Amino acid sequence: MKTLNVDLGERSYPIHIGSGLLKRPELFKPHVQGTQVMIVTNTTVAPLYLERCRALFEGFEVADVVLPDGEQYKNLQTLNLIFDALIERRFDRKCTLVALGGGVIGDITGFAAATYQRGVNFIQVPTTLLAQVDSSVGGKTGVNHPKGKNMIGAFHQPQSVIIDTDTLDTLEDRQLSAGLAEVIKYGLIRDREFFEYLEEHLPDLLARDKDQLAYAIERSCWNKAEVVAADEFEAGQRALLNLGHTFGHAIEAGMGYGKWLHGEAIAAGMMQAGYLSKLMGHLRDEDLARMARVFETAHLPIYPPDEMSPTDFLALMAGDKKVQAGKIRLVLLKAIGQAYVTGEYPPELLEETLKAWRRR
Amino acid sequence: MKTLNVDLGERSYPIHIGSGLLKRPELFKPHVQGTQVMIVTNTTVAPLYLERCRALFEGFEVADVVLPDGEQYKNLQTLNLIFDALIERRFDRKCTLVALGGGVIGDITGFAAATYQRGVNFIQVPTTLLAQVDSSVGGKTGVNHPKGKNMIGAFHQPQSVIIDTDTLDTLEDRQLSAGLAEVIKYGLIRDREFFEYLEEHLPDLLARDKDQLAYAIERSCWNKAEVVAADEFEAGQRALLNLGHTFGHAIEAGMGYGKWLHGEAIAAGMMQAGYLSKLMGHLRDEDLARMARVFETAHLPIYPPDEMSPTDFLALMAGDKKVQAGKIRLVLLKAIGQAYVTGEYPPELLEETLKAWRRR
Repeated sequence: MKTLNVDLGERSYPIHIGSGLLKRPELFKPHVQGTQVMIVTNTTVAPLYLERCRALFEGFEVADVVLPDGEQYKNLQTLNLIFDALIERRFDRKCTLVALGGGVIGDITGFAAATYQRGVNFIQVPTTLLAQVDSSVGGKTGVNHPKGKNMIGAFHQPQSVIIDTDTLDTLEDRQLSAGLAEVIKYGLIRDREFFEYLEEHLPDLLARDKDQLAYAIERSCWNKAEVVAADEFEAGQRALLNLGHTFGHAIEAGMGYGKWLHGEAIAAGMMQAGYLSKLMGHLRDEDLARMARVFETAHLPIYPPDEMSPTDFLALMAGDKKVQAGKIRLVLLKAIGQAYVTGEYPPELLEETLKAWRRR
Repeated sequence: MKTLNVDLGERSYPIHIGSGLLKRPELFKPHVQGTQVMIVTNTTVAPLYLERCRALFEGFEVADVVLPDGEQYKNLQTLNLIFDALIERRFDRKCTLVALGGGVIGDITGFAAATYQRGVNFIQVPTTLLAQVDSSVGGKTGVNHPKGKNMIGAFHQPQSVIIDTDTLDTLEDRQLSAGLAEVIKYGLIRDREFFEYLEEHLPDLLARDKDQLAYAIERSCWNKAEVVAADEFEAGQRALLNLGHTFGHAIEAGMGYGKWLHGEAIAAGMMQAGYLSKLMGHLRDEDLARMARVFETAHLPIYPPDEMSPTDFLALMAGDKKVQAGKIRLVLLKAIGQAYVTGEYPPELLEETLKAWRRR
């Protein structure tokens, strides 16, 4: 087992990464403040891991709530199901929530923890690669609004993140690929050496080589923890983690939540950001080709959906959270391994990107 | 104009109290971070003060959303109307919300500010006595769940609280009395001298004497600000502010939100807490009589609703936020002017209170 620390002063917490962690109650119990534990999971994960997770909390009052699976359920209505369960069981403000599942479960459970009785503890137990390398770390929680992703939410840090790499055994291939999109992102924004590692080792990761997966998760979490520790509330460099996300959120909303997986949408979005970076004179054609090759190796889309026109994109992107004073702020690349945030780019280059970077 | 400061380090903010403040843009504009202002108000307050409030923000992009009036609308559905308005107008994360109204508007707008795009600025402009002396100060925000009051919420401090005492001119008598319940509360929990002032001056307040009202608001806000500064997140003494609230919340939920005003419910609740304090041997009969006299002078109920049985109370109180590990924690009085929090009281004395302190 490897342990990283997310260094946030009073709100610091450990990330444990390893095989078989869902069988180690001693990792979980110290993070339960009171006597009541509510496990939040979904219809896909429950049959696989719910009983094992319940068994971790022997001696506590354990309840669970099983939500429908999919990004389209990450909304206020589903959130309310968690509140219903908590209130029905009379869970008090010392209760602890456990998010057992992927990014949607982590985000919605974290937001329930942020707002139930004005804030209770929670533990992240991510079971998808995407959640393990990205969304479970850093305290961003929330739900979607029909017109914008993660529009409603809060910063609320977990008490710990416990990543049992064995849960990846049951992850379907499409979800594994979607998670790799966020892994590749760390290479692109701040860790060129890791990008080069991925160019070499993506086939091992796709073949689910345990050691390589554990390494990729650990290095991703290390990158994430560094960025979050430096800028918890996204006043500055944390925004770099949104490479491809403004494009990607538009794809998710435009296609209807759940149609394209988040990882798929941001893969195409990172290519769009890369193309714009090329138009800005930062990336060379060969850099863009390397990016495309990595995403394609990971079985990820490199082009946005044919159904969406440049106009669709502009309309949806204008509503994104990264917009300030009417300007769409974007994360672009100076080079592979070096991202920056800017609202200063010729708008016609964004339009050209939306028109030109499409499947022929 | 008087100005108090709520001393919370980086989150400190001023409370301005005085006549005519809704005509002074210079008090409001410095608290707007970006260019967009969303005024949230209700159908009762909008015809009276919305235009005047809009005029304060000349030069900004000003929008408004008018919610239905009443505690029964303080829920997730109404909250979503604010999100709809913000997203429709493409308000970004530098926007500022303005809560123009009573406690419900302040709580729900504050919670919208806490959670829109993971947190934006807001200004409290309370127009009821209750909101001016209590709910607008201290950063508690939230909405009700059908089974429990303020069950969903967050701590989120405003940028400022601006109290224009002229707005009390249009407040109906019943609402004025409800606000006095919270004013009296400060006397009971920590300011015996203020309680004695109220014994003498309640008739002036009911007659809407401007100077006395301004003084009562200022002294209430001073008490609130002191308590909040010492214990922002209610780890300890802030809980004293909940005198009568566990009983009162049960009344509000049991009767259906909006039937009894919050101030009315907590007045009866404070008498119940007082009666239990007497059974505990802290208060004398004459203390209880003084309390009853003050509430009756303020035209507030001193007994709980006939419709609710002791069993109803116990069931609803068991779901309150103050419950920890199954114990109903209560705020009781050692004396007039001195409250304390405890879960250590003979349960049969609580039952006796619920049975005995009722209208004959």
